[in-house]
Amino acid sequence: MDNVEARLVRRLVAIFAADVAGYSRLMGTDEEGTLRLLTERRRDMDDLIRHYDGRIANSAGDSVIAEFPSVVAAVESAIAIQRVHGEANAGLANDHQIAFRIGIHVGDVLVKNGDLFGDGVNVAARLQQLAEPGGIAVSAR
Amino acid sequence: MDNVEARLVRRLVAIFAADVAGYSRLMGTDEEGTLRLLTERRRDMDDLIRHYDGRIANSAGDSVIAEFPSVVAAVESAIAIQRVHGEANAGLANDHQIAFRIGIHVGDVLVKNGDLFGDGVNVAARLQQLAEPGGIAVSAR
Repeated sequence: MDNVEARLVRRLVAIFAADVAGYSRLMGTDEEGTLRLLTERRRDMDDLIRHYDGRIANSAGDSVIAEFPSVVAAVESAIAIQRVHGEANAGLANDHQIAFRIGIHVGDVLVKNGDLFGDGVNVAARLQQLAEPGGIAVSAR
Repeated sequence: MDNVEARLVRRLVAIFAADVAGYSRLMGTDEEGTLRLLTERRRDMDDLIRHYDGRIANSAGDSVIAEFPSVVAAVESAIAIQRVHGEANAGLANDHQIAFRIGIHVGDVLVKNGDLFGDGVNVAARLQQLAEPGGIAVSAR
């Protein structure tokens, strides 16, 4: 997939939206420790997104938007991410665990300069809000 | 599963929430035809819920709330329902098709007199709203 597309392109993809449950609380409790752990988790997440042919379109703070060529690839990537993160959390006190919620939606997106736009992105973000910490919410036909 | 439980019981189940996309519009266009088709679709749906060990807890108009002992059973039931309904819609004009949206969430419910209560039911209903017509939205760890 091209990383930069100057023209507006419409395509059907699996949109992946992730954020950290209770991120503000975690940052309020221990900013340095949270950012250090978040960096480790993001490294695992980014590797596993790429491994399943995904592309990260936007990321800011604790949130990541990515696109995958198929819902199967997106779900497999999300399961692998939650498994690795779950193992990493196993040794931590509950209130220090970094648990991502992941939403996946299959829909049309508009792509410009590598960024994703459109209703499909909003649906993925709302699904993510309904996912359990450490869980995945998926909408597909 | 007991159909009647006079005492308040908490249990972990897969909650299934379904409604018909554009139900008000369909009823406005053709009330009799819509109700006739809805009755047929509900017969298929109810059979397939029972076939996968599900129990219908509430139903009103176009909406159904059911519980399943596992997320796998709930998802298999939902896929079978959407497949059968998709085949039934194939011969109909777009604006006469009856397409259910289905949301499935694994969570705690409170059961009283066979009715389901609790946050998990609300999450399933919100997932259902995010599902595509003819589609399924699932949230699970």
